[in-house]
Amino acid sequence: MKRVSGTFIPPIMLDSRGRSPIYRQLYDWLRTAITEGQLRPGQRLPSTRGMATELQISRISVFNAYEQLHSEGYLEAFAGSGTCVARAIPDDALGVRSSRDRKASQRRPVSGARRVSARVAALWKVTPEPWLHSMGAFRVSLPALDHFPIEVWSKLVTRHSRRQSRTVMAYGDAMGHLPFREVIAEYLSTFRGVRCHASQILVTTGSQQALQLSAQVLLDPGDQVFMEEPGYRGARVAFMNAGAQLIAIPIDAEGMIVSEVMARPRAARLAYVTPSHQYPVGMTMSAARRISLLNWAMRSGSWIIEDDYDSEYRFGGRPIASLQGLDTHDRVIYVGTFSKVLFPALRLGYMVVPGDLAPAFSAARDAADIFSSTLYQAVLTDFIREGHFARHIRRMRMLYMERRKALVNAIRTHMGNEIEVIGAEAGMHLVASLPLGIDDVLVSKIAAQNGISAMPLSSCCLKSPERAGLILGYGGVNARQIHDGIRKLAHLKSGLTCTKVPNAK
Amino acid sequence: MKRVSGTFIPPIMLDSRGRSPIYRQLYDWLRTAITEGQLRPGQRLPSTRGMATELQISRISVFNAYEQLHSEGYLEAFAGSGTCVARAIPDDALGVRSSRDRKASQRRPVSGARRVSARVAALWKVTPEPWLHSMGAFRVSLPALDHFPIEVWSKLVTRHSRRQSRTVMAYGDAMGHLPFREVIAEYLSTFRGVRCHASQILVTTGSQQALQLSAQVLLDPGDQVFMEEPGYRGARVAFMNAGAQLIAIPIDAEGMIVSEVMARPRAARLAYVTPSHQYPVGMTMSAARRISLLNWAMRSGSWIIEDDYDSEYRFGGRPIASLQGLDTHDRVIYVGTFSKVLFPALRLGYMVVPGDLAPAFSAARDAADIFSSTLYQAVLTDFIREGHFARHIRRMRMLYMERRKALVNAIRTHMGNEIEVIGAEAGMHLVASLPLGIDDVLVSKIAAQNGISAMPLSSCCLKSPERAGLILGYGGVNARQIHDGIRKLAHLKSGLTCTKVPNAK
Repeated sequence: MKRVSGTFIPPIMLDSRGRSPIYRQLYDWLRTAITEGQLRPGQRLPSTRGMATELQISRISVFNAYEQLHSEGYLEAFAGSGTCVARAIPDDALGVRSSRDRKASQRRPVSGARRVSARVAALWKVTPEPWLHSMGAFRVSLPALDHFPIEVWSKLVTRHSRRQSRTVMAYGDAMGHLPFREVIAEYLSTFRGVRCHASQILVTTGSQQALQLSAQVLLDPGDQVFMEEPGYRGARVAFMNAGAQLIAIPIDAEGMIVSEVMARPRAARLAYVTPSHQYPVGMTMSAARRISLLNWAMRSGSWIIEDDYDSEYRFGGRPIASLQGLDTHDRVIYVGTFSKVLFPALRLGYMVVPGDLAPAFSAARDAADIFSSTLYQAVLTDFIREGHFARHIRRMRMLYMERRKALVNAIRTHMGNEIEVIGAEAGMHLVASLPLGIDDVLVSKIAAQNGISAMPLSSCCLKSPERAGLILGYGGVNARQIHDGIRKLAHLKSGLTCTKVPNAK
Repeated sequence: MKRVSGTFIPPIMLDSRGRSPIYRQLYDWLRTAITEGQLRPGQRLPSTRGMATELQISRISVFNAYEQLHSEGYLEAFAGSGTCVARAIPDDALGVRSSRDRKASQRRPVSGARRVSARVAALWKVTPEPWLHSMGAFRVSLPALDHFPIEVWSKLVTRHSRRQSRTVMAYGDAMGHLPFREVIAEYLSTFRGVRCHASQILVTTGSQQALQLSAQVLLDPGDQVFMEEPGYRGARVAFMNAGAQLIAIPIDAEGMIVSEVMARPRAARLAYVTPSHQYPVGMTMSAARRISLLNWAMRSGSWIIEDDYDSEYRFGGRPIASLQGLDTHDRVIYVGTFSKVLFPALRLGYMVVPGDLAPAFSAARDAADIFSSTLYQAVLTDFIREGHFARHIRRMRMLYMERRKALVNAIRTHMGNEIEVIGAEAGMHLVASLPLGIDDVLVSKIAAQNGISAMPLSSCCLKSPERAGLILGYGGVNARQIHDGIRKLAHLKSGLTCTKVPNAK
């Protein structure tokens, strides 16, 4: 380190063994001195030779630093010859900055001046969710990652990555990779009774993006959205983010109570439903309700989002056909995801949009993030075509059925009869209802502190919830983890039951 | 094929060699008959045995079909015994559907009833861009894909894909994969003079998502945004999509004319700038302007987005340090991307947000699409750490410099002196100005029809443009393609020059 005190310039430290080259250190120092007002506009700088001698560095370093500052407008040629600080840097600008120091940069201006949008301010204030931080028992939506056929998958990844074509590297279609969309359309029409053409498939980064895009395309700020109560929080934040007003519609054993939809004084622009397997409670929407909802949408010119989020896993009976397949007036936007079947970090989902809305959705996707990464789309196309996908679903269906049984048994054994297990025999989670008066958010928070992820049922509610419960995912946990997790949860809960707290959110 | 005409039911076709199993065909047919009103609520169905005999199929197939329809609520138990069509399906619902036929599903209801949001309707109407369909000469933003070190890259992909850990497969942080954010923070502070900590880095799917998220976090509908004129269309659509009002601020040789910003009667909530290399015209924003703009933002409580989109490529002199590095009041959101340095389908970019806004941006990202796919983040972390990234940039800088020269020469040779080449010696594109009176959109459309991608300068303008020009990308084209492309373009242009059209957009 050499410390040089110039006659005309503030002290400067140059470190010859430093990370950045000498010219760069000099450049940085001079720039800071100019912007902080230590060097004033019009102030003459020594010649490159003079500066080099002064600092005992090479002249080329000084030259490079000056040249760079010159090209950025901090320095200018001095009348006649030589170099000075640019005079075009306004005095007041420098005045403001001359007071800068470490503290100044930490000092926050008044909060009113750091305004974020009303929508995001509202989002930001939504309760933090400590139960989502753990990937252990009983993280909702997490599949059995250790049962994923990683060998087959990585072979496909390697195959596509090695002979990575121009198509896989360049800009892709906002709607998605065409062969992938064709495979999805075929899958949906065969297994889910969805009526669609590949041109209606929009590949997304997951169901959340599908919801966000739907909100952008279909909702103006202030529009109403009908939500199942309790319902899916991800949908709620997507609609909030579009400035929508959320209206809770109660559910019963047949799903959303559509007569309540019709009884509302004003028809919502959009209804969001999970007809195959209601989230989080698990019932299937009845045929009568499906038809009524479709008719409501047709009559009122509203849209329906059908989120078919884990329809692949149904343990009793066959998968229920989609609502979209019943829709003859193109009122349904169908949403699905591969995250829960394969693995979340895949970031691939899809939506089926009415043909006439495809250009609007495509424009919204372009504005949002242009298109989805192509590699995984190409890999998954082969994975489905070669039969690995169907095989994996079959294997996971057996596995999740066993895990569900193990979880129900563990709850019976360790948590007693006061806990009711709610939810059809489907999917990757169930709801364990808690005795009246227990604050499920509190239970969940304490569980999270103890490494257990148990989502409170009330976090899925817009209104004050009628019952408390924990949503327990069993996709990503084996029998031992289930057993240990429930024992721990029972222990935590029994501590709480002794000191019941009012069910205030 | 057997055609069976029941006494009590409409004709039904079952195909024993068909794709779907017999039970499924029966199920489909019955469901359709119910929803279309051919089978009425309460109507009794034959017993499983009776139906099996009638249709000459196995009784188990009938049983399965009935059971499925039962579980979906289409059928119910008949008083006493047997099965009938569910009475809960409302009559009017069925009435509506009984008129269904192929034509009905094609018939579009009145367009007013198929309303999309005002924002997206506006987006959708933005001129279509045929010049973006071709990936050949002179597609803007396309890097030299054939010079990408695919061997090294795919080795890293294989490495990470094979020993794909739980981290790489499960849900990730909305802000991004931490090791990747650390590498980005280090890169930005070393090479771009950005002052940041990894906690301020938000990994995005590209600069477009960074702009979209910024719009969501910072803008309420109706807020004003100051845009460079001409400026980047991607930013325009992101801000439009948030319901913002766009204000064009003219530019000169020093970039955005900040005095015009100050002269506006009302301070915008946000100013969007490309200070290192103005898009599309190419100048560098002067130091004086940078400081003035920062001061304006501080005084008016506004935000600045610095889009540093291709700062890696600067052929004369060293890269210009970022505006963010000068900001001592945390007013700047810094945006960058890897799409232009590596390949677009990578879908990885980043933004640096002020520390106090990080939770808001994280919430907005969660609402938008939760997080970015982890594999490529992990791969790129190693690619940067092992020095491949810096090496690739150095090689590409040389290559693009040569390609730029080739393009300028080709324009000189084939298009004559009336074409002025505009743009600093930087980046991956330049602007070829057209003689006054030529409609650049028309030239671009005709070029697109002939397989040449040449973006019209006026498509970057909010107002009626003052000059016409073509934005020509040279990143993804070799010398021969440049030569052939310009010859073709010169030929197309000369045809137009003879029949000059008024410069109306």
